[in-house]
Amino acid sequence: MSFSPLIRHLIDSLRILPGVGQKTAQRMALHLLERDRSGALRLAQALTQAMEGVGHCKTCRTLSEDELCPQCSDPRRDDSLLCIVEGPMDVHAVEQTGYRGRYFVLKGHLSPLDGLGPEAIGIPELLTRVEAGSFSEVILATNPTVEGEATAHYIAQMLANKGLITSRIAHGMPLGGELELVDGGTLAHALAGRRPISL
Amino acid sequence: MSFSPLIRHLIDSLRILPGVGQKTAQRMALHLLERDRSGALRLAQALTQAMEGVGHCKTCRTLSEDELCPQCSDPRRDDSLLCIVEGPMDVHAVEQTGYRGRYFVLKGHLSPLDGLGPEAIGIPELLTRVEAGSFSEVILATNPTVEGEATAHYIAQMLANKGLITSRIAHGMPLGGELELVDGGTLAHALAGRRPISL
Repeated sequence: MSFSPLIRHLIDSLRILPGVGQKTAQRMALHLLERDRSGALRLAQALTQAMEGVGHCKTCRTLSEDELCPQCSDPRRDDSLLCIVEGPMDVHAVEQTGYRGRYFVLKGHLSPLDGLGPEAIGIPELLTRVEAGSFSEVILATNPTVEGEATAHYIAQMLANKGLITSRIAHGMPLGGELELVDGGTLAHALAGRRPISL
Repeated sequence: MSFSPLIRHLIDSLRILPGVGQKTAQRMALHLLERDRSGALRLAQALTQAMEGVGHCKTCRTLSEDELCPQCSDPRRDDSLLCIVEGPMDVHAVEQTGYRGRYFVLKGHLSPLDGLGPEAIGIPELLTRVEAGSFSEVILATNPTVEGEATAHYIAQMLANKGLITSRIAHGMPLGGELELVDGGTLAHALAGRRPISL
């Protein structure tokens, strides 16, 4: 091996990052050592602080170091809307759209083959949250995958008798997509979900 | 912003890694927080240890936490060959070829426009190294770029009267390349550097 032990250990440690293989980890390690040692030390500190300080928001279950995350602690948001997503990254994605209701963050989706049932992904906490709130609509924004659809369907059934509107995010053509490139299932959804053009 | 301060700070800190933009940094931060907190703490420690512990080999100037790097401290290597490269990553690349001589690692290449002259990249240390050693051949393995060629040429001139063979790594077609895709300069070098086939 041509790297000394501390450098080898750093390269191995960098490989825990998603999408980082051996070559990228080498490039990162040498870049930090040669060009940005103070940045690397700040990164080490940020990692330690975040891993030790960040827990989960007690209301929506997203990642947060405070008891309440920025979305749950904001009094100006719409308390009649609840958006259910699979993870903290999805909260960020939905926030970009301008949505200003509340959230509930599942721990992924139902996956019986992996032993992930309703308890594992936080459905009981979701029911508690819905019952404690004053929501008029629950938006199911799980991913449009087989597991995400099954999870949305399961939650819709659980909430059937609560006097709420339960809605599912629309499926259809992504903006900028091309009909000839999109898969048949998506196009079928786009056709079935067509809407009149109002001029 | 939909992330709490510690998470935002972690995302910003991850962006110092080469090739990591905002989206990738978000994905990395949430992945570590949700899936691999102990790995992230080990990474933080590896970063701190490497940044504080790794210096430069006093003989070849590559990155190393010991006074001598693994290549310089190995007594079985060929002391008659010296390979000159632009950086520590290049040592790793040349090692993969089976080369078992010695190294000298420059700090990049000559770049007068950026104010990088012979002193800045370590040419005086290289001359000291060559004079202290018993080399019969110096292999110039700087990159085949304009700056790398200029650096190799400069070093070859500096070493002209030392009674050494100075050689340059070959230019030509990369293995697996296609003639119709390679640039004209490379193909011209490949033609000019053609060698008789020995059957």
